[in-house]
Amino acid sequence: MKDKLSTESYKGVRDFYPEDQQFLNYLLATYRSVAKKFGYVEYHASILEPSELYKAKGADNEELVSEQTYTFVDRGGREVTLRPEMTPTVARMVAAKRREFGFPLRLFSIPNVFRYERPQRGRLREHWQLNVDIFGSESFAADAEIIQVAYEVMKAFGAEENDFVIKIGSRAFVDALALELELSEENTKKLVGLLDRKNKISKEEFESALSELGVPPEKLSSNNIPADVQAVLDVLSGAGIGNAVFDPSIVRGFAYYTGVVFEVFDTREENSRSLFGGGRYDNLTELFDNEGITGVGFGMGDVTMHDFLDVRGLLPTYQAPTHVYMAVASEQEVPHALLIAQELREQGVNVASDFGDKKLADQIKQASKNKVPYLLVIGQNELTSGNFVVRDLVSGAETPLDRAALASFFLSR
Amino acid sequence: MKDKLSTESYKGVRDFYPEDQQFLNYLLATYRSVAKKFGYVEYHASILEPSELYKAKGADNEELVSEQTYTFVDRGGREVTLRPEMTPTVARMVAAKRREFGFPLRLFSIPNVFRYERPQRGRLREHWQLNVDIFGSESFAADAEIIQVAYEVMKAFGAEENDFVIKIGSRAFVDALALELELSEENTKKLVGLLDRKNKISKEEFESALSELGVPPEKLSSNNIPADVQAVLDVLSGAGIGNAVFDPSIVRGFAYYTGVVFEVFDTREENSRSLFGGGRYDNLTELFDNEGITGVGFGMGDVTMHDFLDVRGLLPTYQAPTHVYMAVASEQEVPHALLIAQELREQGVNVASDFGDKKLADQIKQASKNKVPYLLVIGQNELTSGNFVVRDLVSGAETPLDRAALASFFLSR
Repeated sequence: MKDKLSTESYKGVRDFYPEDQQFLNYLLATYRSVAKKFGYVEYHASILEPSELYKAKGADNEELVSEQTYTFVDRGGREVTLRPEMTPTVARMVAAKRREFGFPLRLFSIPNVFRYERPQRGRLREHWQLNVDIFGSESFAADAEIIQVAYEVMKAFGAEENDFVIKIGSRAFVDALALELELSEENTKKLVGLLDRKNKISKEEFESALSELGVPPEKLSSNNIPADVQAVLDVLSGAGIGNAVFDPSIVRGFAYYTGVVFEVFDTREENSRSLFGGGRYDNLTELFDNEGITGVGFGMGDVTMHDFLDVRGLLPTYQAPTHVYMAVASEQEVPHALLIAQELREQGVNVASDFGDKKLADQIKQASKNKVPYLLVIGQNELTSGNFVVRDLVSGAETPLDRAALASFFLSR
Repeated sequence: MKDKLSTESYKGVRDFYPEDQQFLNYLLATYRSVAKKFGYVEYHASILEPSELYKAKGADNEELVSEQTYTFVDRGGREVTLRPEMTPTVARMVAAKRREFGFPLRLFSIPNVFRYERPQRGRLREHWQLNVDIFGSESFAADAEIIQVAYEVMKAFGAEENDFVIKIGSRAFVDALALELELSEENTKKLVGLLDRKNKISKEEFESALSELGVPPEKLSSNNIPADVQAVLDVLSGAGIGNAVFDPSIVRGFAYYTGVVFEVFDTREENSRSLFGGGRYDNLTELFDNEGITGVGFGMGDVTMHDFLDVRGLLPTYQAPTHVYMAVASEQEVPHALLIAQELREQGVNVASDFGDKKLADQIKQASKNKVPYLLVIGQNELTSGNFVVRDLVSGAETPLDRAALASFFLSR
């Protein structure tokens, strides 16, 4: 006899059992609803992309592609990567159809993305990510809108303003500072890296590294708000958003950001980490042709969001999509049960029907295990009299109903 | 200057631009709605699976895994496969939680699946597939229900009974025939393969191969309906389904089928091919432990379904999800426009707003390109008077409205 296989999924990815899937669907529906309200239109793509797409972004990406992505050579000799993020894909797609689209162009997608890294809390090898991008406008109102969409998604999940803070920085501001201080290209990169790490190191460590680079700390005071950040803050404040602030240390890791950048932080003291972020990138479509299109966007992952909602008790409770389980006294009643089921389905009720090949008590137990809220027993008595009894499988309460009243009972719950 | 990258997707997979994505969403929503009506509950899993999952099913799968799937070794030395189908995954997931589930257990999923093959019409390297399965019932009513779900999905897409035919066969019948004729195991396999190819070869070729195996053609007459197929046909007929027939040549390719099997065919003469199919498989969960759970299910792909609907004019027309584009006379009006947008969004209207950094005529042109149905111009006049004009971007018709009447106008379209 052969050894049995493990029932575990591949390492670092998840199985979505009905309750997990219902949460994922809730997340997707919330993402979609907010993005559409702001005029964003959904697109999608395959997880398979030519590896060049990720190598092209800059020298330091070579390492990212070879060490942190799922990359392999297909049988036709093509190097393929499972997308680690969506931005290069959307830039490719926009570049391909630039003549057909109108600008400003608002797009969103909810792809799954892959990273080859050691799985840990909040970081898995595969996660789903809302991506919202606007292309073709240099207006600061576009930067502000992207941040507003992020804010509205948080609110739609039930978060309050004091649950999160939106920290806004500027890559243009850092570049201007580097120019003013005559920093070398290498030191500018170091400064960006240092700012990106600010929250992960001590104040002393940060300031000593800063002085090593020759950057006076007052240049990074949060009182000197750069003009681009101020313009964005003004729009946000006009929209009634009260939890956005300037933070000079916000620079974002990716090399492609060029302007206003932002990160949303959890405000819980024990978990004051970055939940997600985004910003403006001006040159991504230039990978494909000479007409650069400016873009601004953000990406928001499902794992981080689940954890954020979980600790705040904001996760929705599971509700079985099936309204009623129809238990059948014996196989003889099955054809009659199927006709009643059909009647109910035509009126919009979701009905699972048993096949009568098990004892009634066992049928009821199985329905409870699957968390179906109501039970309807179909036996000779019920069929002859036309009087049915609906049992609430949680409370045990029973409601007598005639056949014509069944559908409205289930639909009103 | 570096060479520019191609904007094409990886070979054999698709980009989903807004219109493609809207069709995919329509497909998913229709799949979901029908599956839920019959009490099926949604699950999902990662596309990454340990390769053993596909190798274990039988000797001939070794070739399938190495030649027809995307399989690679990860950096931890694990062999990984991009799932080519969902059935092994759902069997794995059910085996893992068999104690927590109630049976009969109804599950569905709409995964994307991958095949490494030469792309051609109707067969791509990645497609989406509705998978519907019922576990834990040996009743023929379970087989019939699966077929009924498939039928109802076709109807939900607008297909009529004369657009497709459901051909039902039986692996148990073929096995019984082989036993009766004392066929060797090898010849039984050959018979299954021959039946599976029946529609692709000539009548003469089929009959000569049949006689070579020593199978009298009358044994395969569609008048001798096996008992299992008859039981299923009876239930289907009771449910009012008039396009299901017995066809002894229906056996399905996969080795794991054991009982009733079926395929749905397009009835158009010029394209009388199999659209999709399924059947009963009894031993799949035994890969994981000694308790086999019987299952019956089907898989239905998006590419085939798109082609089927396309030739019949059943594809839905694209409707931009954005109700209205707000053009802005100048940047000065942007803050006012944003407030109106916010008002409309709170009432459920999907609004895209311009940033006023382009001429009005250009803003209108861009909105039309993106197929937004209505336009609302925000200028000083409108803001002062409170009188707005909504323009239909297709017909050019204009409707004067005051601010309070805007939302209901858009929502009633």
